Amino acid sequence: MAIKTSEQYLASLRRLKPTAYMFGEKIENVVDNPRIRAGINATGATYELANHEKYKDLITTISPLTGEHINRFTLPPQSTEDLVMRVKINRILGGYVGTCHQRCTGLDCLCTLSIVAYDIDKKYGTHYYDRFKEFLKSMQKNDLTGNASVTDVKGDRNLSPREQPDKDMYLRVVDQTKEGIIVRGAKVHQTGSLSAHEIIVLPTRAMQKGDEDYALAFAIPSDTEGLIHVVGRNSMDTREIEGVDCGNIRYSKYCPTLIFDEVSVPWDRVFMFREVEFTGEMVSRFSAFHRQSHGGCKSGKIDVMTGAALLMMEYNGTTKVSQHREKVINMIHMAETLYGCSLAASYEGKKEPSGTYFIDPILANASKIHEGKEMAEVTRLLIDVTGGFVADLPSDRDFENPEIGELLKKYLKGATEVPVEKRIKMLRLIEKMAMESADTISDIHGGGSPAAHRVTIFRESDIDYKKRCAKRLAGIEP
Amino acid sequence: MAIKTSEQYLASLRRLKPTAYMFGEKIENVVDNPRIRAGINATGATYELANHEKYKDLITTISPLTGEHINRFTLPPQSTEDLVMRVKINRILGGYVGTCHQRCTGLDCLCTLSIVAYDIDKKYGTHYYDRFKEFLKSMQKNDLTGNASVTDVKGDRNLSPREQPDKDMYLRVVDQTKEGIIVRGAKVHQTGSLSAHEIIVLPTRAMQKGDEDYALAFAIPSDTEGLIHVVGRNSMDTREIEGVDCGNIRYSKYCPTLIFDEVSVPWDRVFMFREVEFTGEMVSRFSAFHRQSHGGCKSGKIDVMTGAALLMMEYNGTTKVSQHREKVINMIHMAETLYGCSLAASYEGKKEPSGTYFIDPILANASKIHEGKEMAEVTRLLIDVTGGFVADLPSDRDFENPEIGELLKKYLKGATEVPVEKRIKMLRLIEKMAMESADTISDIHGGGSPAAHRVTIFRESDIDYKKRCAKRLAGIEP
Amino acid sequence: MAIKTSEQYLASLRRLKPTAYMFGEKIENVVDNPRIRAGINATGATYELANHEKYKDLITTISPLTGEHINRFTLPPQSTEDLVMRVKINRILGGYVGTCHQRCTGLDCLCTLSIVAYDIDKKYGTHYYDRFKEFLKSMQKNDLTGNASVTDVKGDRNLSPREQPDKDMYLRVVDQTKEGIIVRGAKVHQTGSLSAHEIIVLPTRAMQKGDEDYALAFAIPSDTEGLIHVVGRNSMDTREIEGVDCGNIRYSKYCPTLIFDEVSVPWDRVFMFREVEFTGEMVSRFSAFHRQSHGGCKSGKIDVMTGAALLMMEYNGTTKVSQHREKVINMIHMAETLYGCSLAASYEGKKEPSGTYFIDPILANASKIHEGKEMAEVTRLLIDVTGGFVADLPSDRDFENPEIGELLKKYLKGATEVPVEKRIKMLRLIEKMAMESADTISDIHGGGSPAAHRVTIFRESDIDYKKRCAKRLAGIEP
Amino acid sequence: MAIKTSEQYLASLRRLKPTAYMFGEKIENVVDNPRIRAGINATGATYELANHEKYKDLITTISPLTGEHINRFTLPPQSTEDLVMRVKINRILGGYVGTCHQRCTGLDCLCTLSIVAYDIDKKYGTHYYDRFKEFLKSMQKNDLTGNASVTDVKGDRNLSPREQPDKDMYLRVVDQTKEGIIVRGAKVHQTGSLSAHEIIVLPTRAMQKGDEDYALAFAIPSDTEGLIHVVGRNSMDTREIEGVDCGNIRYSKYCPTLIFDEVSVPWDRVFMFREVEFTGEMVSRFSAFHRQSHGGCKSGKIDVMTGAALLMMEYNGTTKVSQHREKVINMIHMAETLYGCSLAASYEGKKEPSGTYFIDPILANASKIHEGKEMAEVTRLLIDVTGGFVADLPSDRDFENPEIGELLKKYLKGATEVPVEKRIKMLRLIEKMAMESADTISDIHGGGSPAAHRVTIFRESDIDYKKRCAKRLAGIEP
Repeated sequence: MAIKTSEQYLASLRRLKPTAYMFGEKIENVVDNPRIRAGINATGATYELANHEKYKDLITTISPLTGEHINRFTLPPQSTEDLVMRVKINRILGGYVGTCHQRCTGLDCLCTLSIVAYDIDKKYGTHYYDRFKEFLKSMQKNDLTGNASVTDVKGDRNLSPREQPDKDMYLRVVDQTKEGIIVRGAKVHQTGSLSAHEIIVLPTRAMQKGDEDYALAFAIPSDTEGLIHVVGRNSMDTREIEGVDCGNIRYSKYCPTLIFDEVSVPWDRVFMFREVEFTGEMVSRFSAFHRQSHGGCKSGKIDVMTGAALLMMEYNGTTKVSQHREKVINMIHMAETLYGCSLAASYEGKKEPSGTYFIDPILANASKIHEGKEMAEVTRLLIDVTGGFVADLPSDRDFENPEIGELLKKYLKGATEVPVEKRIKMLRLIEKMAMESADTISDIHGGGSPAAHRVTIFRESDIDYKKRCAKRLAGIEP
Repeated sequence: MAIKTSEQYLASLRRLKPTAYMFGEKIENVVDNPRIRAGINATGATYELANHEKYKDLITTISPLTGEHINRFTLPPQSTEDLVMRVKINRILGGYVGTCHQRCTGLDCLCTLSIVAYDIDKKYGTHYYDRFKEFLKSMQKNDLTGNASVTDVKGDRNLSPREQPDKDMYLRVVDQTKEGIIVRGAKVHQTGSLSAHEIIVLPTRAMQKGDEDYALAFAIPSDTEGLIHVVGRNSMDTREIEGVDCGNIRYSKYCPTLIFDEVSVPWDRVFMFREVEFTGEMVSRFSAFHRQSHGGCKSGKIDVMTGAALLMMEYNGTTKVSQHREKVINMIHMAETLYGCSLAASYEGKKEPSGTYFIDPILANASKIHEGKEMAEVTRLLIDVTGGFVADLPSDRDFENPEIGELLKKYLKGATEVPVEKRIKMLRLIEKMAMESADTISDIHGGGSPAAHRVTIFRESDIDYKKRCAKRLAGIEP
Repeated sequence: MAIKTSEQYLASLRRLKPTAYMFGEKIENVVDNPRIRAGINATGATYELANHEKYKDLITTISPLTGEHINRFTLPPQSTEDLVMRVKINRILGGYVGTCHQRCTGLDCLCTLSIVAYDIDKKYGTHYYDRFKEFLKSMQKNDLTGNASVTDVKGDRNLSPREQPDKDMYLRVVDQTKEGIIVRGAKVHQTGSLSAHEIIVLPTRAMQKGDEDYALAFAIPSDTEGLIHVVGRNSMDTREIEGVDCGNIRYSKYCPTLIFDEVSVPWDRVFMFREVEFTGEMVSRFSAFHRQSHGGCKSGKIDVMTGAALLMMEYNGTTKVSQHREKVINMIHMAETLYGCSLAASYEGKKEPSGTYFIDPILANASKIHEGKEMAEVTRLLIDVTGGFVADLPSDRDFENPEIGELLKKYLKGATEVPVEKRIKMLRLIEKMAMESADTISDIHGGGSPAAHRVTIFRESDIDYKKRCAKRLAGIEP
Repeated sequence: MAIKTSEQYLASLRRLKPTAYMFGEKIENVVDNPRIRAGINATGATYELANHEKYKDLITTISPLTGEHINRFTLPPQSTEDLVMRVKINRILGGYVGTCHQRCTGLDCLCTLSIVAYDIDKKYGTHYYDRFKEFLKSMQKNDLTGNASVTDVKGDRNLSPREQPDKDMYLRVVDQTKEGIIVRGAKVHQTGSLSAHEIIVLPTRAMQKGDEDYALAFAIPSDTEGLIHVVGRNSMDTREIEGVDCGNIRYSKYCPTLIFDEVSVPWDRVFMFREVEFTGEMVSRFSAFHRQSHGGCKSGKIDVMTGAALLMMEYNGTTKVSQHREKVINMIHMAETLYGCSLAASYEGKKEPSGTYFIDPILANASKIHEGKEMAEVTRLLIDVTGGFVADLPSDRDFENPEIGELLKKYLKGATEVPVEKRIKMLRLIEKMAMESADTISDIHGGGSPAAHRVTIFRESDIDYKKRCAKRLAGIEP
């Protein structure tokens, strides 16, 4: 059967030998590196819940392609219900891991390719869609995790790909052979690239004639020769390394820069090759799916933050403070706004020619625009309710120190009935959720920058209809 | 057939003889009073579109009760689709009339009673639901408009109904006979009460033991003896009276105070009588339905406002101003937020014991909380894009004046190719939409005050689940 | 002595014979037209308080020009203290009239000319400043009110003055004689132009070579031949005409469009003539002074709104509602923000070559940007605290009607100890402050549009200093 | 002379032997611990600039107490100008260190004591003020840094000090002798306590009869026996330890928990002892001064953030992106709002009986309320403009790695003319300013929680005046 357990997932990652660096050093065993492992654990939760009595019916389904039971994280949606389930399981997972589970991006690439590869074939008589279906079958049968490799480094933002002084600022084909293509470039903010089996590459922007070398989509294993994962720094990145003060006791997130230093891609893994006029569609489909995903997982993350705020009120003894309750209501309101708009985008989805269902992009972007602005506010409210220890709680090593540990516990006691340990643990979790950069910054820049979301909502709206409404009521038109 | 045309609707209103006052004087012919008529026209649009080639399939459906074609504004939802259609037709109507169409409140009462009358019967073996079905049948067969009579005057907000020094501060039964009950009290903000055939009364708040006299639900014709409609003042209320500078050339809104000066209600129109423990459910169902309605009509209103803003950019010659475009995007974003959350609330609806579908109250309130805060911002943005003439455009009578009319037209010319008349008309429409009180204040207080929406979203949320999520990740609970 | 009483002010207006239209008709006696009179009363308050025991020491001072006691509304600031007093007396007046007192704009022109006329003379050896001083002397000696005639109609916003198809879209000189110049054009949003003795014209924007005909500054009596005041419509403009439901029982605001239909200006009243490179300075000085003024009067207006909100809590019986208290705190916070930034702008003012003190434009614009965004929020909060009657309170004529008046009073009773009349009056005032267009829209567009304030704050900031700070800390520069 | 250089300051700290713990271990040499040192450096900047040609006239002045030149950070304000200078030098220092310089809190305690010690003496004939003057003299003569020890751990927030199950939840006197008092308790968020020579203790809240043991104010050297500094964790606290990826190349912040484990205080350092009715004044004076300080330093910090945002636009090649410019304008606007309100609070200051000048608390709190809400928004805007590398920039050790360093530099190149090193350094600084917890959380909780600021602004406002304004205009009162 095609559903892996989290142990099988870990084992499958151990079989990979990716090239990875962190803090200037090569990592030989990524799975057992505690920092990477905390990220892998978050993706592992998508495997765990697929085998969890309570959640497995939500997270698994039958594949129309293979007829087998599969994890929904390998399924391009074939119905409105599939679209809706994407949001619902992301919300559950957001609440379960309290950070990014890192498996949605690969799925969003699969969804995108399942529409656009078909559309390209329709126009050009190419056979990308068949290749893609084979790839998809293997993803489903082996219950694999994909990583979306979309964001190029981009060089000078004033210049198009072909205009860059260094031609590698967007990933491009530098050679082609009978076996396949050779590519060069780099992709950044590659959340969970070492937790994935496959790296799925899509173009990062709409391109024009002249940019053909950059109009590429393909997939390769994450340990392909020439691929270099450089795990960047996050604000609290040494906590897992030190094994102390992690806050979230199981899960975390890391985001490599991924260098494609002359990487070979076999033809059967190439899903777009130089069809430059489809780059725009590729990007906009991917972004729309990914923004829909965020509406689920981030509302789930706010569920944790809301719970944490309410518990801090209990642990501090401020349950009756009415302004704190108002702040919690604001947090809930924002979770439901992200979720509601993302759900609506799903329910209003439509079938594409390939059979995949696509969401309403206006509503998906409505959700994401809120996320980009309001997650920072949710975080601020959480800090406000919690108090100053978000900034400077002593280390667990201080609490364990024989000379000062008991003194610290004496003085950190909050509400009368609450054991001080609970308060300390919750403060630590809140520090993680409020101040960790890898996850919080994706609120703003995940799925494209805020400006991109705004442009999309305007472009997709029926502007003429709105004008006609106004003209009729003003008496300018009948 | 049960679908009225707007002409038939008007004719049916003419047959009523309500007692009505405005500006201190009795109105004998409400249908031809130009101010009331502008409101009636807005409700008339729900009849007009039911007969409109493009919209009739959206706005009409088959009644499961009568088997006949009916206007959806008489249909308690019998499916998720029915819930969704409520939002969609409200959005269309909001764009069509550019103000409140005033027919949703009566429907929201029908929806409420179709759930709660059944629930009361279940508990007490009463027969309210049968009575209600007969009433509903007549509403459907005659395509009638109902008016929600919910908001009591409330007297001293510190005191419950039974504690008020004047016992009539909440509408109450003062006597009962073999024929029915006699009630006294007053309901306020009765949007469109003179455009309705039936006044449907529900309690305004959850009540306690001792408040039995106030636990009432019933329906009476809008011209019942003892009912007095006092049409209050709105900020631009004399424009329709004067027949000039109306802005919205067809539609407007008015909101009477409705006094029940000893009014008789026959037993077959009484749907709740002293079952005080069901008042809470009655209010919360009604509010939820009404907040869902707002998510549709107000997003439709923003469609008009957005169109108006874009047209003013064309008429002023500011189409290329990037900040203005950003403001329009904010307007669109807010429309889609209201719409998205309200749609999601509908799609996530569930069947109640009586067969009526009920929305997700959390998501409906998420929409309404945005409305209460952000419609004012949408209005501000519209004024910002438009310019100062929202405040002080000369009257059409000035434009028609032989001495100054041509001078004014010369000087009010905007963008080169645009006739000045268009600019003047659009400015006038915007003045109406931005500064008219009857409609804009319902953004804040319609469907309960902002505080009520906030309390609801908190109460309905699964707080324990959120706490468990946080405890698990902090390591406090497994 | 040079201080007029409000009676003397009224008498002086009666001696003027301006050409004025309203609702398409000529107004023969503007002073006794009840709508105009309510505006005149607001300006009259600046005379009244100058003679008021409690305020006269604040509002009057000694003129360095004439050595006489004068009203500060005729004084270009000669010290930091004078700058600060501008803000403080505007706050008092905002609280005293609850709307725009309409006398600041003329003063802001005097302040501007007292700097720029001097600067032009310095460069060109002209004698504008002497002329201006004579004019100023007469303003001071006769305690006159000026009206700032700044905002041109502007035609197509895409085009500069000289590029407009109709050359009169910005006020311009069409002829010149030995006696003076002849001008044509129109100025809009001329708040209180019929309450003023003098119309003071400044250019509305920075202009370029080729726009010389438009580079004008001058002053003329408000009843000069060829000047036509067309009083535009405001949202509640018929209330004063009807003499009922005014809300603010004494004061209001009106904003004419002012047509200069070939108007002669004698040379001794011309303060700028074709010096096109000084138009930018003229506009930016005026705008800065006017934005400073707003920080005073609008915080004073919020004082009234805050008081009204608190009283409604008393009258409704909601004094203990904690969310309402939080909303009132937001209102107070915004008043103090406008006031604080405007005060700081004054204290940080500097002496110009002519001797007049000029404010810090960054801080003045910081105040105005808040006003443009937050006054709408303050209004929304006021409505929220007050309740739905802001939209639809019955008319005083209804309350006086023998058939329904007593019933209405019975049902509008709020908190137990509060006479219903107080509640009705306060609701009416709040309706006026929340929904009246003439005043509220100046929050957004008064003193230039929000975009103008933003451009200014950026242009005036020391951008290089900020960059150097960042470079040093990043280790890019020492 | 009384002005130390930064070297002399360092040397003076080396003479102290405080008891300090970090990460569970005792720190023997705090001055050379790289993490503590980065904080010491920030305080050192107040010494450095006092000797800097450009700034020394701003930062130093003559002491009215000693007649000597002193650093303003030891001067309770003796004039309005002194109050204003507090804000101005804090803004300069905020821009100079890009974080908290940590010396204002001690000064704010001196300011407070210079008012309240006098007031207590006036009432009780005690001699606290004389003692305080002696202490102040030594602070001035030796150019010492004080640390405000105000925030108690507070235990159960529902309970007053005397009601806590553990009586030490607020610092209290446990014994008294001829030599002095013995105190026990703990103070938290003790920013820079190891950079200070003196710990100045004030009560954390207004107290009531029965809380006398907690009504204490005193000062002791930071290395007094029994004092334990436990340096808490911050989000990026290991960077200085590792000596890499610091972002801000010189300065940082740390915040110990400070345990008073039976500490002796000699009588001549006790400035309040059991005068419980003065605790409220003590807290409100301190908070007001400290909120005023924030208006300076935080606007200075925004100066750095604004410069960083503008430079990132240059380095990324997005200088022409109009939305980014709008975001930068929002950042500037917020800096000026904090600054403007804080400046106004200073200019409006008044002389207290002791001769010290006290600010306007309403305006100081207006500034702080903005900080508590808008600094998070400023940070969000900075991240938005900068891009995703705020989350995951590779380490400097990666850039130095011979295998991948050059590849990384190739791919991180931005705008054509800008060396990649500049971009990397600026990204690192931005990461620090956006995601570091020690400093950013003080935006919210520094100087008391947001709720405290709101309560204060309400309590200090003249509510009756506002009501009278409204009553007069509504016609309720003459």
